[in-house]
Formats: sequence, structure tokens, C-alpha cells
Amino acid sequence: MNKAGETARTVRDELKLESFLPYVLTRLAQGVSVELSGIYGAEFGLSVPEWRVLANLAEHGTLNARQIVDFTAMAKSKVSRAVQSLDQRGLVTQQRADSDNRAKDLALTTRGAALYRDIVPKVLAWEESLLEGLAVGEYRDLLYLLDKLGNRLQSLR
Amino acid sequence: MNKAGETARTVRDELKLESFLPYVLTRLAQGVSVELSGIYGAEFGLSVPEWRVLANLAEHGTLNARQIVDFTAMAKSKVSRAVQSLDQRGLVTQQRADSDNRAKDLALTTRGAALYRDIVPKVLAWEESLLEGLAVGEYRDLLYLLDKLGNRLQSLR
Repeated sequence: MNKAGETARTVRDELKLESFLPYVLTRLAQGVSVELSGIYGAEFGLSVPEWRVLANLAEHGTLNARQIVDFTAMAKSKVSRAVQSLDQRGLVTQQRADSDNRAKDLALTTRGAALYRDIVPKVLAWEESLLEGLAVGEYRDLLYLLDKLGNRLQSLR
Repeated sequence: MNKAGETARTVRDELKLESFLPYVLTRLAQGVSVELSGIYGAEFGLSVPEWRVLANLAEHGTLNARQIVDFTAMAKSKVSRAVQSLDQRGLVTQQRADSDNRAKDLALTTRGAALYRDIVPKVLAWEESLLEGLAVGEYRDLLYLLDKLGNRLQSLR
């Protein structure tokens, strides 16, 4: 419920991109993504979608393409192309799922898992240096607020 | 400089996507972007890149494609396709720039500006409902922290 004085801001009739939250979030996320891709792109030759598929398979084990779409919020076509490319490099396997003829179970190969383990310390070190811009409390606040906004977004769907 | 106790968190050796800031930011930004695109997509037939080009031209007036790439952090090819499509719909004009033979000056047509004005109240109302999930102070904190992170990102480039 939204009583006077409790809203996050007053109603505006003009859109200013610098204070429009969807724009601010997208711009920062893209900037972070581009910089991060410099880490795994230059040394390991992965595209942004390929890295995201790899990281989700490493975290969740076996997934099908639809689940990867759900986890990453990437377009289905982007996920498909990334999977094909990772498959061609011998980094993932695709197996027909028992439960569903159309869906394939995707998983990392030994080589894919090894590549992922090589990348992890480097992306964590990069994240660490990014976070040096925030104090401990600020980082916790940020995660809390992003989570709260994510929950609100879910409730709007 | 980064003394003990002043870092945002201790060094980890495992990547957990749910607390990996690039992932958290991207996921939220994508989710917000997809939901927002439901507003201008369904009623006005714009894609995400088309809307972003439109909004940046409305905010900044005349821009060339490179400037739009800078403002939006979208790939050049995505911006080009969006511009062609907006041009075909009579929403933007492309004029050869005086200063540079290769760059074209892009601007909204009267029709493009009118479409933008029709969309603005709807996207602002949607943002407003998203922000009802946060208290006033939380919203301010969030903008502050995102800005601080953006500055830190710039300094890492």
C-alpha cells in the first residue's frame, strides 16, 4: 500500500535517464559485464553468453537450455548459440533427457570444468577490486537493496 | 589502498552466483528491462534497443551512433539495427554531419517525439510501482551505492 510520504519519490512527468532506475541499473550492469568479459574473453576466448552458460552449469550441475534461460534471463537464441559453441570446443556435453524427448541435458565436460576452475580466481579477484570502492556495510546494503528490488520485481510479474 | 578489515569482503576461492555482484546486477537489470519492455513493446511496438535509442535522442537531442553506443553501452550493431528500424517507421532522421563525413547526426522526428511523450508517463508509472518496494531512504541509498560503484568501475578502466 502506498500512502503519501511513503513512496520512494514523488510522481514525475519527465523522464531523466540519469535517475531512471531501469537505465541506471542496465548501464552499470553492462559496464560491469563488459569489463569482466575482458578477464575471461582475452585469456580464455569466451563470449559473455558462453561464460554465463559455463558458470551456471558449474554451479547447478546438469541443466537444460530452458533452465539456463531462466537463470540468466538471456534470450533463448543466445543460450542456444553459446551452448553449440561450447559443445564444439568440447567444454559441454548435450544428452537427450530421459524425461523429455525435446530437452537436452547439458553438463560441463572435464575440460569445461577445468577451464571454469582456471577462470574463477581471476573473476573473483576482479570483483574484489571493484568492491574496494565500497565499505563493508555499503556492500551489504547494496546486496540487500538489490535483493529487495528483485523480490518486488517478482511480485509485479 | 586496501588494508585488512576495510575490504568489502574477504577473499573467496569459490564463485557463488547468487552473491557474485556482476551476476546479481545483470540478472536484476535484465529482469527490469524485460518487464519494462512489456510496457512500450506491447502498446508501441518498440524493441528494447529501439526504446533506448529513442529515449537517448529525446534526452540529448542530436546524437551520432557512436554517442548512443557510449550512452547505452549497447553493441554498435544493435544500435545500427535499431536506428534503421526507427528510421523506417519515420521516428528518427539521419543526416550527414557537417564535421565528419562518416558520422550521421540522428534526431527524433515530430512523430518520434510524440511517440516518446506517449510512452513516458507509462514507463514512469511502472518505475513508480517498482519503487514502492523500497522506502524513500532505501531508494536514495540504492542510487548512491550504484553511483559509487559506477565511479569505481570507471576508475578501473
